[in-house]
Amino acid sequence: MPLGERAGDKSESRYCGVETEFSDDMPQLLTNHIYSAGFDFVVAQLMDPAYRPSLMQKESGEYGVLPFAGSDLVLSPSQWSSHVVGKISSWIDLDSDDEILRMDSETTLKQEIAWASHLSLQACLLPAPRGKSCANYARVVNEILQSLNNMLLWLRVPLVKTDDDATDVNSDHMIDSWEIWNSFRLLCEHHSRLSIALDVMSSLPSENSLGRWLGEPVRAAIVNTDSFLTNTRGYPCLSKRHQKLITGFFNHSIQVIISGKPVHNLQRGNADLASNQSNNNIDGVQRYPLRPYLDYIGYLYQRMDPIPEQERFELGYRDFLQSPLQPLMDNLEAQTYETFEKDTMKYIQYQRAICKALLDRVPDEDASAITTVLMVVGAGRGPLVRASLQAAEESGRKLKVYAVEKNPNAVVTLHSLVKLEGWESIVTIISCDMRYWDAPEKADILVSELLGSFGDNELSPECLDGAQRFLKPDGISIPSSYTSFIQPVTASKLYNDVKSHKDVIHFETAYVVKLHSVARLASPQPVFTFTHPNFSTDKSNNRYNKLRFEIPSDTGSAMVHGFAGYFDATLYKDVHLGIEPSTATPNMFSWFAIFFPLRTPVCIQPCTHLEVNFWRCCGPTKVWYEWGVTSPCASAIHNSNGRSYWVGL
Amino acid sequence: MPLGERAGDKSESRYCGVETEFSDDMPQLLTNHIYSAGFDFVVAQLMDPAYRPSLMQKESGEYGVLPFAGSDLVLSPSQWSSHVVGKISSWIDLDSDDEILRMDSETTLKQEIAWASHLSLQACLLPAPRGKSCANYARVVNEILQSLNNMLLWLRVPLVKTDDDATDVNSDHMIDSWEIWNSFRLLCEHHSRLSIALDVMSSLPSENSLGRWLGEPVRAAIVNTDSFLTNTRGYPCLSKRHQKLITGFFNHSIQVIISGKPVHNLQRGNADLASNQSNNNIDGVQRYPLRPYLDYIGYLYQRMDPIPEQERFELGYRDFLQSPLQPLMDNLEAQTYETFEKDTMKYIQYQRAICKALLDRVPDEDASAITTVLMVVGAGRGPLVRASLQAAEESGRKLKVYAVEKNPNAVVTLHSLVKLEGWESIVTIISCDMRYWDAPEKADILVSELLGSFGDNELSPECLDGAQRFLKPDGISIPSSYTSFIQPVTASKLYNDVKSHKDVIHFETAYVVKLHSVARLASPQPVFTFTHPNFSTDKSNNRYNKLRFEIPSDTGSAMVHGFAGYFDATLYKDVHLGIEPSTATPNMFSWFAIFFPLRTPVCIQPCTHLEVNFWRCCGPTKVWYEWGVTSPCASAIHNSNGRSYWVGL
Repeated sequence: MPLGERAGDKSESRYCGVETEFSDDMPQLLTNHIYSAGFDFVVAQLMDPAYRPSLMQKESGEYGVLPFAGSDLVLSPSQWSSHVVGKISSWIDLDSDDEILRMDSETTLKQEIAWASHLSLQACLLPAPRGKSCANYARVVNEILQSLNNMLLWLRVPLVKTDDDATDVNSDHMIDSWEIWNSFRLLCEHHSRLSIALDVMSSLPSENSLGRWLGEPVRAAIVNTDSFLTNTRGYPCLSKRHQKLITGFFNHSIQVIISGKPVHNLQRGNADLASNQSNNNIDGVQRYPLRPYLDYIGYLYQRMDPIPEQERFELGYRDFLQSPLQPLMDNLEAQTYETFEKDTMKYIQYQRAICKALLDRVPDEDASAITTVLMVVGAGRGPLVRASLQAAEESGRKLKVYAVEKNPNAVVTLHSLVKLEGWESIVTIISCDMRYWDAPEKADILVSELLGSFGDNELSPECLDGAQRFLKPDGISIPSSYTSFIQPVTASKLYNDVKSHKDVIHFETAYVVKLHSVARLASPQPVFTFTHPNFSTDKSNNRYNKLRFEIPSDTGSAMVHGFAGYFDATLYKDVHLGIEPSTATPNMFSWFAIFFPLRTPVCIQPCTHLEVNFWRCCGPTKVWYEWGVTSPCASAIHNSNGRSYWVGL
Repeated sequence: MPLGERAGDKSESRYCGVETEFSDDMPQLLTNHIYSAGFDFVVAQLMDPAYRPSLMQKESGEYGVLPFAGSDLVLSPSQWSSHVVGKISSWIDLDSDDEILRMDSETTLKQEIAWASHLSLQACLLPAPRGKSCANYARVVNEILQSLNNMLLWLRVPLVKTDDDATDVNSDHMIDSWEIWNSFRLLCEHHSRLSIALDVMSSLPSENSLGRWLGEPVRAAIVNTDSFLTNTRGYPCLSKRHQKLITGFFNHSIQVIISGKPVHNLQRGNADLASNQSNNNIDGVQRYPLRPYLDYIGYLYQRMDPIPEQERFELGYRDFLQSPLQPLMDNLEAQTYETFEKDTMKYIQYQRAICKALLDRVPDEDASAITTVLMVVGAGRGPLVRASLQAAEESGRKLKVYAVEKNPNAVVTLHSLVKLEGWESIVTIISCDMRYWDAPEKADILVSELLGSFGDNELSPECLDGAQRFLKPDGISIPSSYTSFIQPVTASKLYNDVKSHKDVIHFETAYVVKLHSVARLASPQPVFTFTHPNFSTDKSNNRYNKLRFEIPSDTGSAMVHGFAGYFDATLYKDVHLGIEPSTATPNMFSWFAIFFPLRTPVCIQPCTHLEVNFWRCCGPTKVWYEWGVTSPCASAIHNSNGRSYWVGL
């Protein structure tokens, strides 16, 4: 039974599991923990823990029946697959110095996985690697993954990172379980069916260190009863930091699993008092001693705010790679205009900027005498024309508007809008590419919305270079400047999606993506800035910048799968618009971030830095980016000559 | 005119060049340096060094003719291509903070390369990167490489590595030009047309540090006249270490280029004395003051030993990747038998081992009474049968030989050999796979030559496991054991050849290869050992080993492209046979090394270590290796499940 109802949440995190002891009576196990106690699934050992292949052969002298927990017939297929996660024998040690133990471990692991596959379980929990050296374990798991069809493997990883001062970094005593995970998954080539079950301990590493896991394929968080505190009424509860962590897990579709023996011995009286916290009866608590832990997790789940409307709409886009629009080369479709025009916040900002510019340009005393010539270049279906007219009204300034649009399909809508609103006397529609239009007069204000997620990536600089021909020498461009930003991220989901294409092209392409399961490793830094108008004679829209990122030292080692990109635009003076996280315009949805992948992920050791180079290159028919890491170790230059990804002029 | 004749040497290193000043009279330049002074080619600047694109446009107000050194017509096409290497303007600085200089540099570099391509030059010399930060330079060169057809680019790299103590490793003052090269070529993705011209300075880094360059695509060594010493007669000469270096270059097809102004002001009298050192007249020395440097380089070349016959035969195999034989799954061809049977040294060792075993097995007093049963398993066309019979004769022991061979084609030859030699009474031929033969009696000695370059890689263990069924409990196997070895290597040529296939399969395959242009970064270490006979009941031919290599600290950083593999076999007691470099059997040519590539080359920083795991895995129908690096950073497990490369049973 799910933890509760949270508006908009359809994710896996609604289901809570329990780790159980070995039992060869699976039906009883399900009755106890699921049908009675209320858990959604059990993490159950499939094989008698006393089993050792080498002993079995020696004892019996022949091959017997493997000691699994009952035959496949003891549960229905749907019970197996929806209520049981297989737990692999925890005694296995593939990296033992004892060769017999190693062989027994390999045999058992393969037998148990084969059995779990036979049962069509959705996942198996693999025991945690026993130390930093886990190459043989990884090799065998990798071998298994090659022929595994649907089942996920959850590698158990303790959520541990020894705190240390910087001098001690290379010490062998330092344990950072993320590094063990990182080695393991690199050996398994980021296999998409290898994921993580984090063992949450009673003490937690630093925030920065925890943040790394958000970019990893964590499916489950195992919370031991030992990690719970006791509230004043004797009930289990979690520390504030643990609560925050679990809430974060819920937001990332991570399921909670309760593990361990009940350590809160609840009296009937206490249970009575607690009945307002959960709607389960006292008998339940007595008979199912893990119930209070489940109830507490349910309480954490239920007290979360509903998912806001805007986010619900974006759920389907989370961590989903999209090709950026090419609005210059291609004509946008009506559906696309429809979506972007709904972004009220964006047009409010434009209206504010235009209003300020009008007030600056025409003093109050000239308001009735002077008509400002405003040109909307890339008018689309007219939202900026509307914003301009509203700004004129708000500021009490007189306006003459030219609406320049190259998409003839959008011009149709624009025409009917002008007619419908009765703007014929103010607005002139020009069906032409702004780069080639021969304007009859010069503009005071040039208004455009040509920005992409990375600012200049939809060729705003090239378009406005063309359009500024018909801007007065003292004229104003709205936006007046824009800057792109990047930051290094861990994003194993995105990396795997790019990798699945099995070619270089997709690794040399930038994607628009609603970033969610991503670890942001350092603050974003500015990359390229463009200012408009720019009347200098030897200007170029080529750009080169080298950026140096320091990862906070308490993060530990980290993996960089690529760079998240954003922009911030100054529309006019203090009116800005942007998606750079620290200054992002609230409630604006026109732009997701952009993602620049790396062909080979770069591992950053603590106290080292990451240096990356970004280029914007312009050719006669296209504009493209190249990028490459130069520290700690050089990567390939990505997208040389725009061979994989470019924006058409 | 080549430096001289060296028997067997057909390589580029016979040609010596000279770096010249800019001249717009190319025919005169060739007359002076080639037709008169005797150099083979000039490294000549193609563009007036005063040229700057930004100045030119400003000054003339329009685009003029580029100031190249003469038109393409001043030399014939063959003169351009065989006598001129283009030297790119050395003022260019693509990573300058001065944006105008950067732009000028990019424009000029592209113009000069385009001109050199137009002239069909074989190579251009690119100026050395100006510092550690050379990302923009690399980006532009990489862009050029994408559309370059045949010309090579030689990146000039000073042969410099600051000596340091270990504590100073991270200092910014440390300069190791190899690291700059490494960044540059990583940014250019190991492009096969990007190579190196090393600037040899008057002082040289350590031997280990120098050794790294042998694995890199070095095409030329530029020796400045400043780096020459002066001998007692006033003539230029080089230090012993420089001599050794240059000789090493000759052995690696690296051309020498003399650079700089003559600094040895030779008197006519001195020149006279020196005339026995070169056969050029005194006038030549006076008129062509760089002539003594060329003569000295020629002297170094000529005093080298001729290339030995054996090596001459192997020249064509140097650094050429071959698929290992699969003699168990496939039947060898006559040509292959022919080649291997010529390896006298191998059969001498076998004969010595068999002789010792016979003497141990049969005391002198029983020599005439006891007949030893010897079985040659995998007899091929009979060389081991012959060696056995010779050992019997040498030791005065009586022998009965079974020659077991699965290849029916080889059995034909075996039959005629036995008939021809009159061995019918001693030798019984069995046309059968040794793993399935039902022997009529048991053997005292089992002789086999089933070893591959990596020892067990032609499945000797599996074959001998089968054959030992008919070995007496106290019988002897020759070989009695064998061990494989690996060592990490820099091998950019091999890496590029593997990469050219553009798939994962070729990166997960082991290759037989005559290693030559390879830097061996650490001593080989043993990997897997097999001992025969092995009568234990729970034996397995699976193996796992984890190896840790320390790179000598004075090497500096190094790149690991993969692992060179070898074997050493103990035939009997102290008689061994092998190709592990430190103990290799001399004058044996049956085995080249084996090469295990890495999909992503691993860069090792000074004072860190390299950890690699090797597995030998056995399935019902095949045997394969897997390998993966775990330190400094984990690689993928290569060849999981033998998906790319395996040996058929």
